[in-house]
Amino acid sequence: MSGIGSEIDRLIQLLAKLPGLGPRSARRAALALLKKRDTMLEPLAAALAAAAAAIKTCEICGNLDTASPCSICADPRRDGQLLCVVEDVADLWALERANVFAGRYHVLGGALSALDGVTPERLNVTSLLGRVQQGVGEVVLAMNATVEGQTTAHYLMDILGAVKVTRLAHGVPVGGELDYLDEGTLSAAFKARRAL
Amino acid sequence: MSGIGSEIDRLIQLLAKLPGLGPRSARRAALALLKKRDTMLEPLAAALAAAAAAIKTCEICGNLDTASPCSICADPRRDGQLLCVVEDVADLWALERANVFAGRYHVLGGALSALDGVTPERLNVTSLLGRVQQGVGEVVLAMNATVEGQTTAHYLMDILGAVKVTRLAHGVPVGGELDYLDEGTLSAAFKARRAL
Repeated sequence: MSGIGSEIDRLIQLLAKLPGLGPRSARRAALALLKKRDTMLEPLAAALAAAAAAIKTCEICGNLDTASPCSICADPRRDGQLLCVVEDVADLWALERANVFAGRYHVLGGALSALDGVTPERLNVTSLLGRVQQGVGEVVLAMNATVEGQTTAHYLMDILGAVKVTRLAHGVPVGGELDYLDEGTLSAAFKARRAL
Repeated sequence: MSGIGSEIDRLIQLLAKLPGLGPRSARRAALALLKKRDTMLEPLAAALAAAAAAIKTCEICGNLDTASPCSICADPRRDGQLLCVVEDVADLWALERANVFAGRYHVLGGALSALDGVTPERLNVTSLLGRVQQGVGEVVLAMNATVEGQTTAHYLMDILGAVKVTRLAHGVPVGGELDYLDEGTLSAAFKARRAL
């Protein structure tokens, strides 16, 4: 764009690649960064450089951390008998925020998808089988409740064999109103109703 | 957050400060960066460092560029007799994208606002008067059509004195439907109607 230096243009183009930012919001973000050089631009540049240097993928579970094995895999207070399988690191973060699970994780790196050409070979399935064979009491399948996620869960259930496998419950989200829920969720919640 | 390294946490916190990104989208952006280290994280870190090192505020007009005077102020093909006053660098970029103006710019750095305590002393008004006194044929006031922008335009009109001062036309936006326009815009468009 004329009147914009190539450094700014390049910054805008890179910011626009981030999920959630389009060309317009990337321009706003770039301008905000350039205006607050000391409090935003330089700290962000330093944080990105630090992350690039320090962050590794955990060789055991696939989590992102500064160490490999990651802090969760290395934590002796975590129950090694419980293994929660998630599609993505973002799902691991979500479960950690909910503070609901005290076992270890396994990040598949995606979900099976015929459309996107994601086959079992492209997911961390072999390492999962290896960990399960070393002895695990229960495998919790915490896939997304999407077609791909549920296909992946069924596939894993088949190959995991004798070990105890569970999945997250389907039902009414906490705070949700019945009127706004789809038929599939209502049907699942009804079928899984529990005695009070 | 437990299970997330402090480097990632810091990156998320900094990304969440960008306009248009909240905590959730900052997490998504951080994860996208960490997953595409070679194509996104490292180039963005380099682009930020390059921008921090290279980008200056133009001493004449207030534009952001790698040089001061900026490429617009230094361009001999630009008409020095035309001076367009804008609130912000983003407005300058917008006008440059529209490719509608071949003169020079003056960035005020904001608009007068009693609520936010923005007085004329906090804007680049003195340097504007200096440039106008050096001889300018026309000053185009391209403030936002907000209360603050129009207050600023009136203030500048008063102090600019004898020089020819114009402002952008108000009216129906190109592609706009009358049904969706506010009364103020319709009234302005009606009053400023032109013979076909």
